[in-house]
Amino acid sequence: MEAYAAELTKRTGIPITSADLKKVLGALACAKEFWHITHLSGRPFNVVAESLKFFAERGWVKVENQHLELTPAGRKLVDEQGIKPPIESGCKACNRRGISIERWQDLLNRFKEVVAERPLPIIDYDQGFVTEETTVARIALMADRGDIQGKDLLVLGDDDLVSLAAGLSGLPRRVVVLEVDERLVNFIRQVAEKENLPVEAHIFDLVHPLPAELRRQFDTFLTDPPETLEALAIFIGRGLSGLKGAGCAGYFGLTRAESSLTKWRAFQAQLTGQFNVVITDIIHDFNEYVNWDYLLESVRNDLSFVQTWPRYNWYRSAMFRIETVDDNFFRHEEEMKGAPLYEDQEALIFTRRFRKEQ
Amino acid sequence: MEAYAAELTKRTGIPITSADLKKVLGALACAKEFWHITHLSGRPFNVVAESLKFFAERGWVKVENQHLELTPAGRKLVDEQGIKPPIESGCKACNRRGISIERWQDLLNRFKEVVAERPLPIIDYDQGFVTEETTVARIALMADRGDIQGKDLLVLGDDDLVSLAAGLSGLPRRVVVLEVDERLVNFIRQVAEKENLPVEAHIFDLVHPLPAELRRQFDTFLTDPPETLEALAIFIGRGLSGLKGAGCAGYFGLTRAESSLTKWRAFQAQLTGQFNVVITDIIHDFNEYVNWDYLLESVRNDLSFVQTWPRYNWYRSAMFRIETVDDNFFRHEEEMKGAPLYEDQEALIFTRRFRKEQ
Ligand SMILES: [Fe+2]
Ligand SMILES: [Fe+2]
Repeated sequence: MEAYAAELTKRTGIPITSADLKKVLGALACAKEFWHITHLSGRPFNVVAESLKFFAERGWVKVENQHLELTPAGRKLVDEQGIKPPIESGCKACNRRGISIERWQDLLNRFKEVVAERPLPIIDYDQGFVTEETTVARIALMADRGDIQGKDLLVLGDDDLVSLAAGLSGLPRRVVVLEVDERLVNFIRQVAEKENLPVEAHIFDLVHPLPAELRRQFDTFLTDPPETLEALAIFIGRGLSGLKGAGCAGYFGLTRAESSLTKWRAFQAQLTGQFNVVITDIIHDFNEYVNWDYLLESVRNDLSFVQTWPRYNWYRSAMFRIETVDDNFFRHEEEMKGAPLYEDQEALIFTRRFRKEQ
Repeated sequence: MEAYAAELTKRTGIPITSADLKKVLGALACAKEFWHITHLSGRPFNVVAESLKFFAERGWVKVENQHLELTPAGRKLVDEQGIKPPIESGCKACNRRGISIERWQDLLNRFKEVVAERPLPIIDYDQGFVTEETTVARIALMADRGDIQGKDLLVLGDDDLVSLAAGLSGLPRRVVVLEVDERLVNFIRQVAEKENLPVEAHIFDLVHPLPAELRRQFDTFLTDPPETLEALAIFIGRGLSGLKGAGCAGYFGLTRAESSLTKWRAFQAQLTGQFNVVITDIIHDFNEYVNWDYLLESVRNDLSFVQTWPRYNWYRSAMFRIETVDDNFFRHEEEMKGAPLYEDQEALIFTRRFRKEQ
């Protein structure tokens, strides 16, 4: 496996370890669809795609009707290497979150009504919203941790419409949304006015620092950032800039499909080092995204098994909760004009926006 | 609140923020027992004890039959400050873990039979074991992530008897336990022999580095370390020393009762920096500990509300999963003779071993 990993790393320029190959082979033992394999293996989109392509070339995997299957040679390899598939043990009652939305059913129903006519995701801003259950689970999680009731909440980018769910819950004192997409700002404003919610929305591009009147005003922020290290630092840094001081919280999602664990590690080092905040929770697969219309247009088109429509919501992210331990944390208040927030330039990861021409 | 926090910090020498005081006041709005308040507030034992003592002196809290209650003045303060209690939203089906033990019921039953006569916790080694459900949930979690099936597992300290549950599951290829308590080693050996499990146990003190034949031999390690920064580094560093290379995993618990979030942050910075590993999961309250006999003997005896027997398993820890991203991670292979692994010298935290004489 070491030799194969080295060969593949050399060929693709993406660091791929034998452990990565084994994860993909393990996933192949219980999944046939590219998107399912990507989800189960917990490896970046392109690592999975390149590994599968390599396996197919070696005759370990065959592709039929855009589905993948281990060949007898592939099965032999899996056995020889002692590779076993994951034994799915996630709790079905809470969809693996550990947080239940049972007591939040009324909110869920109201939220579904209200967002029925929401604007659909567009490719320009790396959009793709989570299920309504996920949005409500975020409210439940914040309430469980005491981060929303009687609190001031800042939402940075809100295609998930968390601000409306928060407003409908009756819990927060104030919710402020900064969002680059005018369609969403208008939609949030309309609903907030109609439902009389304490929710304000402003058109705002996070390449700019928070305006003075929004700095140090919030107890909690929530965001779902694009996943370059640069964008992560800007989104989380802007969120921190909004917080009052010690004991405040931030929530955001981070995927495995778009971010390698090497990137996860680097970002965690930044959070706990330079940013001086603590990570209190990392909840696997908490955020479930609704498949977005432009998926197949946005991904590589050189592999037939990638160009297949996913049969379930494969795209997930882990929910991070961070907390400020004292008042001495990083607040990103620099102008970043020209920062390509919604363009993903890291070769290693899947980019939703640009099709790779390889 | 800022002024009170400053006064209390000065008086106790423990850094206490206004956010800490608010967390304790919020917990008081829905709990009356010291242990329950400690659990809900997510603050260290001594921070909670000192805050409650301070509140009682100010007349915000009254103590009756060792229980705590907000006075009218206390309620007024809570209202004025807009402090709200947490809204409990944990999933009951999985006990907040997100991982279900439903498909692991046979293992749970077998495990309960086998450990019925287990050695009880003694004060000397900072012992205190988790519920049988927790031990099985650890197996389920490792299986869900592909970290136990067909794998070699290293267990560092095993009063929880994870090694036996792992052996009984039939999943791992090999399990090695290093444990300082001879009673536990003998017990594990007896059961392993009787049940014919691939489990070896050795008497070993982790002040010593792993012997050469156990270095770079395992896919996964699991430990439940004492919570000084020094002990954390030694236990996790020894675990890493046992791992083969990239893509291996480590599991361990970390509490809020014994470790401040400042300590959490420092340790996370060490993990993701010097140790060069990534944190993939932090699962709140995953580990539930059975109340240990010597609890009241080991904690401060100057406050009546502390000297009360907990009515439920209040002591929890978050489950961390870490993963090695490449082969270039920290392996602690130095001799640490004389390191006080089981003595907790940080003033800030609760020590299970030594009663504070304040
Ligand atoms: Fe989104
Ligand atoms: Fe659950």
